[in-house]
This record gives sequence, C-alpha cells and structure tokens, in this order.
Amino acid sequence: MSFSVAVAGASGYAGGELLRLLAAHPDFDIQTVTAHSNAGQPLASVQPHLRSLAHLTLVDTTPENLAGHDVVFLALPHGKSGEVTAQLDEATLVVDCGADHRLTNESDWASFYGGDYFGAWAYGVPELLVGADGAKQRQNLAGVKRIAAPGCNASTVALSLAPGIAAGVIEASDIVSVLAVGPSGAGKALKTNLLASEILGSANPYAVGGTHRHIPEIAQGLRGAGAADVSVSFTPVLVPMSRGILATSTARIVPGTSADAVRAAWQSAYGDESFVQLLPAGQFPRTADVLGSNSMLMGLAVDEAAGRVVVVTAVDNLAKGTAGAAIQSANIALGLEETTGLPVNGVAP
Amino acid sequence: MSFSVAVAGASGYAGGELLRLLAAHPDFDIQTVTAHSNAGQPLASVQPHLRSLAHLTLVDTTPENLAGHDVVFLALPHGKSGEVTAQLDEATLVVDCGADHRLTNESDWASFYGGDYFGAWAYGVPELLVGADGAKQRQNLAGVKRIAAPGCNASTVALSLAPGIAAGVIEASDIVSVLAVGPSGAGKALKTNLLASEILGSANPYAVGGTHRHIPEIAQGLRGAGAADVSVSFTPVLVPMSRGILATSTARIVPGTSADAVRAAWQSAYGDESFVQLLPAGQFPRTADVLGSNSMLMGLAVDEAAGRVVVVTAVDNLAKGTAGAAIQSANIALGLEETTGLPVNGVAP
Amino acid sequence: MSFSVAVAGASGYAGGELLRLLAAHPDFDIQTVTAHSNAGQPLASVQPHLRSLAHLTLVDTTPENLAGHDVVFLALPHGKSGEVTAQLDEATLVVDCGADHRLTNESDWASFYGGDYFGAWAYGVPELLVGADGAKQRQNLAGVKRIAAPGCNASTVALSLAPGIAAGVIEASDIVSVLAVGPSGAGKALKTNLLASEILGSANPYAVGGTHRHIPEIAQGLRGAGAADVSVSFTPVLVPMSRGILATSTARIVPGTSADAVRAAWQSAYGDESFVQLLPAGQFPRTADVLGSNSMLMGLAVDEAAGRVVVVTAVDNLAKGTAGAAIQSANIALGLEETTGLPVNGVAP
Amino acid sequence: MSFSVAVAGASGYAGGELLRLLAAHPDFDIQTVTAHSNAGQPLASVQPHLRSLAHLTLVDTTPENLAGHDVVFLALPHGKSGEVTAQLDEATLVVDCGADHRLTNESDWASFYGGDYFGAWAYGVPELLVGADGAKQRQNLAGVKRIAAPGCNASTVALSLAPGIAAGVIEASDIVSVLAVGPSGAGKALKTNLLASEILGSANPYAVGGTHRHIPEIAQGLRGAGAADVSVSFTPVLVPMSRGILATSTARIVPGTSADAVRAAWQSAYGDESFVQLLPAGQFPRTADVLGSNSMLMGLAVDEAAGRVVVVTAVDNLAKGTAGAAIQSANIALGLEETTGLPVNGVAP
Repeated sequence: MSFSVAVAGASGYAGGELLRLLAAHPDFDIQTVTAHSNAGQPLASVQPHLRSLAHLTLVDTTPENLAGHDVVFLALPHGKSGEVTAQLDEATLVVDCGADHRLTNESDWASFYGGDYFGAWAYGVPELLVGADGAKQRQNLAGVKRIAAPGCNASTVALSLAPGIAAGVIEASDIVSVLAVGPSGAGKALKTNLLASEILGSANPYAVGGTHRHIPEIAQGLRGAGAADVSVSFTPVLVPMSRGILATSTARIVPGTSADAVRAAWQSAYGDESFVQLLPAGQFPRTADVLGSNSMLMGLAVDEAAGRVVVVTAVDNLAKGTAGAAIQSANIALGLEETTGLPVNGVAP
Repeated sequence: MSFSVAVAGASGYAGGELLRLLAAHPDFDIQTVTAHSNAGQPLASVQPHLRSLAHLTLVDTTPENLAGHDVVFLALPHGKSGEVTAQLDEATLVVDCGADHRLTNESDWASFYGGDYFGAWAYGVPELLVGADGAKQRQNLAGVKRIAAPGCNASTVALSLAPGIAAGVIEASDIVSVLAVGPSGAGKALKTNLLASEILGSANPYAVGGTHRHIPEIAQGLRGAGAADVSVSFTPVLVPMSRGILATSTARIVPGTSADAVRAAWQSAYGDESFVQLLPAGQFPRTADVLGSNSMLMGLAVDEAAGRVVVVTAVDNLAKGTAGAAIQSANIALGLEETTGLPVNGVAP
Repeated sequence: MSFSVAVAGASGYAGGELLRLLAAHPDFDIQTVTAHSNAGQPLASVQPHLRSLAHLTLVDTTPENLAGHDVVFLALPHGKSGEVTAQLDEATLVVDCGADHRLTNESDWASFYGGDYFGAWAYGVPELLVGADGAKQRQNLAGVKRIAAPGCNASTVALSLAPGIAAGVIEASDIVSVLAVGPSGAGKALKTNLLASEILGSANPYAVGGTHRHIPEIAQGLRGAGAADVSVSFTPVLVPMSRGILATSTARIVPGTSADAVRAAWQSAYGDESFVQLLPAGQFPRTADVLGSNSMLMGLAVDEAAGRVVVVTAVDNLAKGTAGAAIQSANIALGLEETTGLPVNGVAP
Repeated sequence: MSFSVAVAGASGYAGGELLRLLAAHPDFDIQTVTAHSNAGQPLASVQPHLRSLAHLTLVDTTPENLAGHDVVFLALPHGKSGEVTAQLDEATLVVDCGADHRLTNESDWASFYGGDYFGAWAYGVPELLVGADGAKQRQNLAGVKRIAAPGCNASTVALSLAPGIAAGVIEASDIVSVLAVGPSGAGKALKTNLLASEILGSANPYAVGGTHRHIPEIAQGLRGAGAADVSVSFTPVLVPMSRGILATSTARIVPGTSADAVRAAWQSAYGDESFVQLLPAGQFPRTADVLGSNSMLMGLAVDEAAGRVVVVTAVDNLAKGTAGAAIQSANIALGLEETTGLPVNGVAP
C-alpha cells in the first residue's frame, strides 16, 4: 500500500530529514515538496544529499500545492502551521513538526511563544507513558488525522524521566536537565550565533534560566505521566556537532527507594520498545550511536551520595527527535506497523 | 628578577601549556624540561607549537634533573608527584598540577584515587572563598613552598557556587553540575575513547553517577566556603572541542532570597578579581571566549520557577583550569604581582 | 535468496560499517562476527550503534570460525588477510577490505607495504574504466570468488580522473591530488596523532611527498584506464570530521581540447551510474552530502588559465570508499542487482 | 613610545584579532574602535573574549572618528577602504586589511573584484622575496604611510613557493595549490554556507576552477619573486576548524635540480626569519601549531617520482594571515623592532 505524501518546508533541516527517511519508507510516495524562498528550485540544489529525490522541484507552500495527498508533513517555522492546516482536508493526515499544536495549555503558549493559539493535537511521542498503568501516548494516535510531532529536547527529557515518575520512584519537583545539542536543531536561520566560526571549538549556552520554549512541553509530558507538580531547570548548550542531543537529566529519588527499583521502572517502561532502549548498568550512550537513526538510547545511574537518579539520553534531534518521531506517529495513525521504514542503527563513527 | 624553572611532564598537554604561559612570563626562565618516554627528544618534536622554546631538549624526570631550580612545576600522572617531590629541596617552590596533594581527607583519596596518600598542600585556587568574611584561598599561598594546583573541573564548579554558599543565599545540599569538556583534560593517554573518530561529531558522557575524581575536591572547596553539608551530582560530557569546560551548575536558592541578593553574592565575591568575572545579567559565556587565557567567565540566572540559581562558567581547562592557575599561585607564593604574565584575553573565534 | 555472511575484523571501523550496511541488505544474513582482542565480547559493547545486531557476540578470527559461510568479508589490518584466506574454501566468496590483494605489481607491494606478497585479486571498483571503449572493472567481478576491495583514497582519485584519461582529454603524467580526509580511515589504532585533542581544530598533513601506500594503487587504476605514464603528487590532510574524503584532483588538459569535451568525458563515463555522479557545471560536492551512503559525487571545473581540469570528489571513506564498495562488488559476484541494499542518500547536515 | 590607534571594522573577526594582538603590544594604545551596524554597543558585547578592552565602545566608521590617530587599521569589507582612506591625514599610518589596495594591475582588480579601483599601496608581506638577490618586501615598508595587508591565502601560497622561484629551482608555470581553510576567513557574513550545521563534519570546496580572488595576488607576489610566467590552479576547501590555513602547494622542479638544492632555497630564504620557518626534513606542520600566533610553518618534500616539490604551510588566517601581518608591517613602517608584540608560539592542542 502506498500513501501519497507532501512535505512542506522541504528546504530546511527538518524537512530534509523527513525526506531522507520517507525516501527509504516502503509505504510512502513523496509527490510534493514545498518551500518559501527556495520555491522553483530543484530539490537537488538545496538538499544535494538526497540523490534519490533529485527529480523533485520545490513549489510554493500553499494550501493548493499541499491538497490532494494522503499525508502532509509540515516542517515550517513556529506559527506558520496553523494558517496552512486550517485549509487542508479533514481526511488528510497532517503531521506538524512545528510547535503550533503541541501545548494543551493556552497560557503556556502565550508565555513561551505568543501570537495566535491554534489548539493542541494528538501528541506524537508514542513511547511516552500516560499515567501509572503502563499506557502510552501511542494509544492516542491510532486513526487520528492531526498529530503534533514533539520538540526534540522536550521529548528527550520527558522520555528520560517519565518512567520514574509514573512508577513513583522519583520526584518531579526538582528536575535538572542540561543538554549538549547540535546546531541543526535551530534550523537554517541566518543568525550570527549559528555561524560555524562561532560554534567550532566552543560550547555555547543559550536560553539559560528557564526561558527555553520546550520547558512547558516537558512539564506537560511529565504531568501526563503522573507528576502532580513539575519543576524543571533546563539548560541547553550548543556544541560542535551538526546533529545530536545528549541530555543529562537528574531527579531526586523518593527516599527509601532501592537502586534496583529505580532501574526497574525504566526497564519496565522501555523493555519492549523498538526505538527507546535502556542500556545495561554502567553503560552510557554517545550521540554518534544514534546518528541518523530513530533510536533513543538511555544510560541510568543511581547516585546514592547525591540522592539522585541520573539519566543520560542520546538522540538524533532531526531523526528520532523530529522527523523520525513524525513518521513513527504517521505509521500508527495509518495503521502501518509502527516501526516501518525507520532505521534503528546509527551511523558511527 | 628572574626565577629558574623546571617543568616535569613537559611532553603532555598540561606540561605544554605550562611552557606556553611560562615562555610569555617576564620573571621565569625555563631551564629544564623533563619527560618519561620522550626523554632525549628535542622539545620541538613533541610540542611543535612552542617555537620560542625550540632550543630545549627533554631530559628524564628524575630528582637530579629537577634539582637546583627556584621553581618546579609538576605535570605528571596522578600518583607520580609524591615520589618525586619527597626528594626536592624544601626551599624550592613546587607546584603540582596532579591530584596527589589536593585532598585534605585521606579517606577521599582512598575512595576516589587509591594508592599511597601523600598529604595535602596549600590549594591553588586564589579566588576561592574561605568562609563568609570574604577571605580567599590566596591568603594561604603567600610564601609557601608547596602548592597543589586544582583539578580543572573541581575549581570551575567550586568557584561557580562558592559565592552563593559563603553568602548563605544557596543551599549546598543538592547541587547539580553538568560539564561540557574538551578531551585535552584527559591528557595524551592512548585510549580508544579519546580517539578523534570517537569524539568528532559526538557528545560522550563519562564517569556518570558520582564516580568522577573531582567530586571530593569540589565538596572540599565548598565546605571551605562555608557549606555544612555538600551533595553534588556531577556529570562530565566530552564534546568535540580540544579545550574548554562549560560548566552548568545549579543549586537551590534559600527560600525568601531575592534574585538581586543572589546576584549580589557573586558580584561581591568577584567584582574586584582580575581573572574571574561575572557577566552582566542576561549574558552567558562561551568557551571560545576564554581559550588560551587565564580568565574564567560566569553568567548567572535566577530561575524562579525552578527555585534554582544557574551558573554557567567557561574556562580553558589547560590554562586557568590547570597551568594558568599553577602560575598564578606561583606568582603569589613568590611575592610577584598575582597577574604577572597571565593573559586575560581569549583567542576567538 | 539469502547468503550467510561472516565479517572478520568486526570490531573496527571498516568492520562496523560492513555490518551497518549488511544489516540493511535484504539478501545477506550476518551469522558470524570475529575480532582479535575483543573476541568474547558482545558486539553491542564495541559497536553500540548497531542496535539491530545486538544479539551477536564477537568470536576469534580463525579459519574455523570463518568457514561454512557463503560470503566472508575481511576487514583486517594489512598483511593479515593473506594468512586467513589461504585456509578458506574456494567456493566461498571472499571480499578483502585490506590491501593484501590489490596490487598486481609485486614490486609496488614491496616498495609501499613490504612483507609477504599474496597476489592480486579481482579489483572491486565496479565503475572504474578499463581502456577507452567504456568497459569497466565490474566486468571482472561477475562470478568471481576473490575480490580485493579498493583503498578509499585510491578509488576516489582513480575514479576522479579515469574518464579524462580513457577519453584522451587529460594527461596522466602530472597529476596532483590533495585530499581532506577524516581520521576513521586510519582505523582504531591507538596512535597519538589520531587522538581527538590532536585533530580537533586542526588540519594535519601526513605521508607527504609521495610515500602514501595508495599511490601505486591509483597509478594501477589509471594505467588500466589507458594511461601510459602516470605521475601522481598525492597529499592527504587529516581534518576534523570523523568520516569523509574530499579529493581535489587536477591534471593538465590535452592542448586543444575544449571545455565541453572535457566535461563530456566524465558525463559519458558516469551518466548511467547509480553511485558515481557528476554534478552540473558550477556545482561541487561536500562530504556531508555522501555521509553514510554509497554515493560518490564529483564536481568538475575547467581552469583555462591554468590549463588544468579540477575534479572535486566527495565520498564516505567507510561506505563507498570501503564497505559499500565491498558489498557492491559482492552483489555483482553473486549475481544480485548491483545496487541492492546500498543507500544513495547521505545523512546531512 | 606609544602610538595612538584606531581600528575600523572592530566588530568582525579580523578586527577582533587586530584588537587582541594590539592589546598585547607594548607600543600601541587602542583609543578608538569603529563598526557599522554594531556602532553604539560596548565592545564587550560583540567581542566578549577581549576582556582587557571591555571599557571600549564601538563608534561609527567615519573619517571623523578615525581622524587624529597615529595609526589606523582598517578591517572593512572589500571596496569600503578606498572611500574612507581618501579622507584620512597623509601623516597617519593606514594599514588596510581589505583587498582594495593590494593589486598593482587594474585589470586584475576589474576581473576579480570589480567596482572602483583605488590603486596599490606598499604590500605588507615582509618576508616575501623580491627578485633573486635576497631582497624582500619589508624594504618597501619602512617609513611608508599606506600599507596593504595581504590576503591570507595569497600570502600563504606566495611565501610557500617564492624561495624556489627566486632561486630558479622550481617552475612557476604549473603550480597547484589546495588549501584546507577555516571559515573565519570568510568573516561574519550571514550566509547559509557558513552556518555551523553546513560545515561541522564536512569538507566543503568553494571557488573551484580559477575564480578565487586571491589568485591574481598570488601571481603578483610570485612575479615579484622573479617568475616570468605564473599559472596557479588554486582550490580552497572549508574544513571544520574555526581558524587556520593548511596550504599544500606544489610546483615542478627544474629538471636537473637536486633535492638538496631545492631545500636549500627555502632554508636560505627563511633561515633568519622570526616568523616564517622551514621545518626539518620529514616534518610537516599542523594548523594547531600556529593558532593565535604570527608564525608560519612550512614542511617541504621533494617527490622525485612526481618531479615536484610539495610545500605544506600552516598559518593562522586571522593572525599571521591578516592581523599579525598588518601589525608586523606597521612595526616596520614606524621604525619599531619588527617582531614587537607578536607571539610566535601557537595555542595547542
């Protein structure tokens, strides 16, 4: 079975990654690729690594060009999806990689993004626990027609800690998460702080002190997992690698909980997952291990002296963090095998 | 005035940085450079960037070769300094860049290093607060003949948080610190995990979960600043830059403390320092800003939602983190102006 | 149809890439993975990025362990393949990624490698022209049981210039080729010059002045394409990227040849190829465009003032440069579609 | 003695490097720093690594603001210097780091730059040979008031080969030079191809095929050294390091010349130089060896099989390549010791 697909925002990094993964997917047929300033150019001039799609030409991102497909993936700047999706057929599966439909709380939207609020869609992190009984977000995705793919940092931190929260072994009230991130997560925007000369050989923090837009999304995910009261100190640091997130997330262990019980919570949550895996004790992942793949690898340590669990999670921000998650959710929504077309092996070294 | 100098371990990264900084110092005369397996080679073949010292030849690291100098800097593997220093003249100023003489608590040494314990020397972090009255470690360095230069990660984290602890505005009982670090801090050891192919394009955690050797040194520094009970969750992450530490350190703010009072503690501690500087509110440092310099830059944010202060500190692990700190301490011990010969400007981009 | 496969040297970089590509190949079944010092370890501990092969355990590289497979891929240090292959069944397809069976001229082997000479096998660069009539090396691979996969630098330079030589539009007598290469091509060897601290932020030449082992292999390839007299000035430069070769190769244009005729030679040679592609005039490839893929991209310029053609070629040294070429050749030898299981799209950015 | 200094274009990379080096120079007093869009900002917000100059504020780049200084350094975009300098006092020493006054041949300017031609000034590559009798460009700089600092790539290639040309041991008619360069040479311009995501993990060629603007400048320098007929195939490749040029330059050796005679030409040319050094036979430089310094290191090999000399030269594009060369020339022009204030040691690793 083959579904016709359009990708909006195909000239950017997230759009390019959608195309790379979709090109290797057996059930999707990429028919339309759209862009803004690059419309009219051959895709090959903007995404020269996508040799198998060199026959495509970028067209304008308009409702007309996006109409008539089974599936539309949106990789547009925040605030742009809402305008477009309002004009798409309700029968079309729309997966938005932007932030416009992620937040259920309008005041969070107002505080961290601003502008028109477009309402929340089904949230595309299939492995994210919902409550304490083992239910996961994937249950909300089957058959839906509108999916909000997650923010890469948000899904990484939420997946890193949700098992402990759902199991009641860690506290959500004093989470600290520090992320080493590659600049591709910031897109192709022409900003001085994203120039190679600024980032090569340097580690550069940004959005320090509770201002990053993914914070409410993390809290929303963890509340879904059962947290009554969530506090997250979140600091991202740009480091000189094009892709990847290495999130070091730590939370206080509920007093009296054994180290084995802590580990068991994660093992139970992810033991049967294809893409999210807990490494054996003493092993920790590197971002290179997941480059280009839909895998998320976690290493977990119990620091008894500090009274904290430390979860180190590696993910490819463009793949499992964005485009892979979007396709995984689309697989579910369309009734395909969830893992279809998604690589689990990273490209290393 | 000119002091004759020997550098032991001159073929390694810390030794090379000592030489680079000493070569630009007006009061030191580098007479002897020693090594282990590289003894007999011209320095230029091992440290080709040190053109001004190309006339020197590496000799064996023996007490005889180190004898007869006014100052001896040791950049030897942990556990090697103790053997050497026992045989050096008591009138010689010895500055050890290894860990052998840093820890005052023998049980810490046994837990984190093991082997013979050599006893603690004066600790070479001049700007580190001692207690609440504004006294600093530099008071312990004047005129001494034995100095333990700090561990780069340890001095970075201790300096990052000591002001808030000494001022009583933050709690030391639940500190979390995550560091992006360059591989030069691990030295020239031939280990697979330090190969370029392993580190390029990847963020690689290590010593996760409370096992890093700098943890007791951090706690010791913060206890000195006034902390009764210190708990540090410490996670270092290797990132693809040769040098640099970007430490994100966070601690809970004592309830009822205003954001201004928090900032004031750091401003008061470092307002008059030449090398440790607090950036204006809203600004945060990059490691490139301090590359090659003896500067340590801090940015501070109060995250009221999380109830935590976040201090982001950038330092060059080899310069201010190790060799620069050693020379700064030697300046004090010898009665020179503390800032003599030490650069404050980084090499960027 | 499924062929059973063993990979010898599975703990190294070339071995890991063979496994990554083989795992995605529909007709190969990886049964055995061997190593030397890592024998006995789970593959997952050495190649943690290969999640789909986490069930495998490394065994010793012995003829016994390699026996009984349809195909054996060897990714062993130079000089080690010869010993092993002598003991393998003649009916087994053996593809050697080392140098032992590449050179047809024993004196070249003696000059550039030394030690026992094991004789030449069919050379696994399918797209390499043989003579002026459009024949290519792939004609030598069908049905064979012993294949020498190419050196990554050698195949890159030979493919870059063979079209012009076969067509008689460029001279082979004064070729200059300078390559920017990632350190993974040097393998996991523990050498100081391959440490991350040495390579990050630096461009490091090696084997300057005509000493690199791939030089006779380049000459052999170009002689095969029709060159009577080959001279190659070849200089590789290690740059801070884990993978990739960007080869800038230049040769004098035969006087009187038009720029169009020059371009036509390459277009004619590679216009129908799946993996080797000439970009449109004015476009040049980046190594990121081919990361993880079996593609080789070339950009070509005619510098009329200099009287030279400049061909800039990007290739992934581990993929198309080594493991991809090996699998492509195996596809041919086994009668499979040549492109089976080999990705054409790179992972970028 | 102290000379008052203004730096125009102080917010860019070349301007920042001028300030970093000038701040460590004993005879210059930085009084004025100018910028375009950043005028009005504190220098510390744009160049946060220059802690010793944090008291300065950027003002507009106007003749009025630049007037009244002993020395004016210009680090402006190409085509902007001419307008400014016409209005500066003739008694002021003006050193232009842009291209506007480098080319003696107006038709070269028209072909490679275009726009108004402003005429050539004394060219600031002190060590560049002029003719065969050992004279060098520095003879043209003493006492002058207008100096054109060189293009970083141009001075690197010209210095790499001039000794052989002046001595008559190599031919200038078929030079090939391929450079690995860091992106800081392209400045802070907001271009997609300079984004970190584009450059990290990739080698990216540009200006392939004889179009780079430094080509006529190289030819001009080599003609000055004695070449009758110069042909240069020149290809720069952006690699993932913020700074540095590693130039691999090769030329045919005049038939009958011994390898010793070739090496002797370079040794003779640079044996007494402070900043340009020929490494011993068999040694080749890395860009890290010269980072932040005014040194240029060369390794030379005679490839007898290829009939070519290969000179590999490492230089910091911003330091010796631009700002260091400018200050070195200013030292000469002002009658100071030529080496004053310029570092010879690199910052490595």
